Amino acid sequence: MSKAPLEIPTYADMLGAHERIKPYIRRTPVRTSDYLDELVGAKLFFKCENFQEPGAFKVRGAANAVFGLSDEQARKGVATHSSGNHASCLSYAAMKRGIPCNVVMPRTAPNAKKDTVRRYGGKITECEPSTTSREETFALVQEASGGDFVHPYNDPRVIAGQGTCAKEFIEQTDGLDAVVAPIGGGGMISGTCLTLSHLASETQVIAAEPEQADDAYRSFRAGHIIADDAPKTIADGLLVPLKELTWHFVSSHVTEIFTASEQEIIDAMKLAWKHLRIVMEPSSAVPLAIVLKNQRAFAGKRVGLVVTGGNVDLDMLPWMASA
Amino acid sequence: MSKAPLEIPTYADMLGAHERIKPYIRRTPVRTSDYLDELVGAKLFFKCENFQEPGAFKVRGAANAVFGLSDEQARKGVATHSSGNHASCLSYAAMKRGIPCNVVMPRTAPNAKKDTVRRYGGKITECEPSTTSREETFALVQEASGGDFVHPYNDPRVIAGQGTCAKEFIEQTDGLDAVVAPIGGGGMISGTCLTLSHLASETQVIAAEPEQADDAYRSFRAGHIIADDAPKTIADGLLVPLKELTWHFVSSHVTEIFTASEQEIIDAMKLAWKHLRIVMEPSSAVPLAIVLKNQRAFAGKRVGLVVTGGNVDLDMLPWMASA
Repeated sequence: MSKAPLEIPTYADMLGAHERIKPYIRRTPVRTSDYLDELVGAKLFFKCENFQEPGAFKVRGAANAVFGLSDEQARKGVATHSSGNHASCLSYAAMKRGIPCNVVMPRTAPNAKKDTVRRYGGKITECEPSTTSREETFALVQEASGGDFVHPYNDPRVIAGQGTCAKEFIEQTDGLDAVVAPIGGGGMISGTCLTLSHLASETQVIAAEPEQADDAYRSFRAGHIIADDAPKTIADGLLVPLKELTWHFVSSHVTEIFTASEQEIIDAMKLAWKHLRIVMEPSSAVPLAIVLKNQRAFAGKRVGLVVTGGNVDLDMLPWMASA
Repeated sequence: MSKAPLEIPTYADMLGAHERIKPYIRRTPVRTSDYLDELVGAKLFFKCENFQEPGAFKVRGAANAVFGLSDEQARKGVATHSSGNHASCLSYAAMKRGIPCNVVMPRTAPNAKKDTVRRYGGKITECEPSTTSREETFALVQEASGGDFVHPYNDPRVIAGQGTCAKEFIEQTDGLDAVVAPIGGGGMISGTCLTLSHLASETQVIAAEPEQADDAYRSFRAGHIIADDAPKTIADGLLVPLKELTWHFVSSHVTEIFTASEQEIIDAMKLAWKHLRIVMEPSSAVPLAIVLKNQRAFAGKRVGLVVTGGNVDLDMLPWMASA
């Protein structure tokens, strides 16, 4: 399943990915706010990946994997395990190519997520919410379907796809001093490192992580991958650990990792909704939270923040829950 | 105070306004959603005026009035009465020119609105929530300050400014079969009529109004201005009646006025937040509500919807209130 030895995607892979996926993704706009700039004392640019049709940047990597398959491979479709945006984005890309997509999801995943996968034609097989059950179930599903495994982030095609976001970001802003993106498994951060290390090597890459799921922060400090033990955070897109491929990029090119508390994430999310007037999910508010918290590190700089997704339950907003 | 006789703004006035205000407004992006297109059976384009820095299209008309003043007039500043977006947008434009802005607001207006006006340097004088008190208070304020009265919509400079939105919209979409905008006092609809009657005379202009504040609908049917008696709707930007100038445009160029119920407005607002992932206020959801309700009228067409503003109280969302 995994490609041994480590298959590091290249800048050329990213450029190829951008050409390949252009018909299926949006060149999302960049939002700014004078109010937030004054508040922070920096010039902030927000790349609105929440405006992708399925609501998340993950459509970039998913589309690159799906449209890179040979016709023969494509007939058997793709398969993955995910309870979040990767599942719906892979289903969306597969639908666009007209091929099957099998997704293993824990039976406890929110119905809204399952509905989105089904709306895009993805076929769900439920597992128990444990790693053992997920791996067993996925092995059976993949054997039955023969679908190509597209890992949510530990896949060179996926990382090359995510890297296309940073390329657009640099083009749209005429350069940035730093790009801040959330880190979970590290797909977006790795793609950003891949692209910027070639296109804008002076631009810092800074990762933003919830305190309550700070495995990347601790790994970065320790110099090797440390996985969290059952992390729990409102930023539910950032629960997964780094893997070999993403660790390669994080350890070699990330400038710094900052963390934010749950309340800081919620406050930043609400502030962004109010002043940018966009709907972003909690995971996507972590970059603004860490910029607000570490203003001296960003003072006077041109800072790009990746708004990774906008899939939230509008009936369960975090600032409501605490009321 | 009012300019007699009727001073109808021209297409040249709108073009002049666009040049004048360009440094102070944003050329807001246009959002689309494959999901909403399929749902409605039409191609929908959403012009995101909620992305203006003060959160509403009204910055266009306000900036045109403020930056069109002679230096001598400008020294005395501007004055208006409004409890909504016009007050903050006029304050914002005055701040940009560095001149005083006096605003008469009912003491019952939400604190959030008052805070925004003050943040932009506007000076608030409170009145009782009645027409008599407002007019008396405003007369005193204007006499004391000598500020130029900028009516929220019944002012040719304001209508010419609002018309710049439709110009951008046509440029950004390569043409539309219809533009749908909310109607309250009629400033946006009048500006849209002004621009499209010259630039794209084949494009229909359709007004969207809450059932519970349907004075424009009834005026349109009757052929003369009918004012509502104390209308009450969640679309709080649309409570005010038509005036002579806006009636001129509505009666001569609007194709149709459709209305939507309170629940239809709330449902459309939530649907837009979910699938466009933008924060729009209830008034701005009325166009989508009437398109969803009258699908046959829009089937297969290219329809532009103006998202007029995004200033909402995130702690009091309408779908929460009913929970």
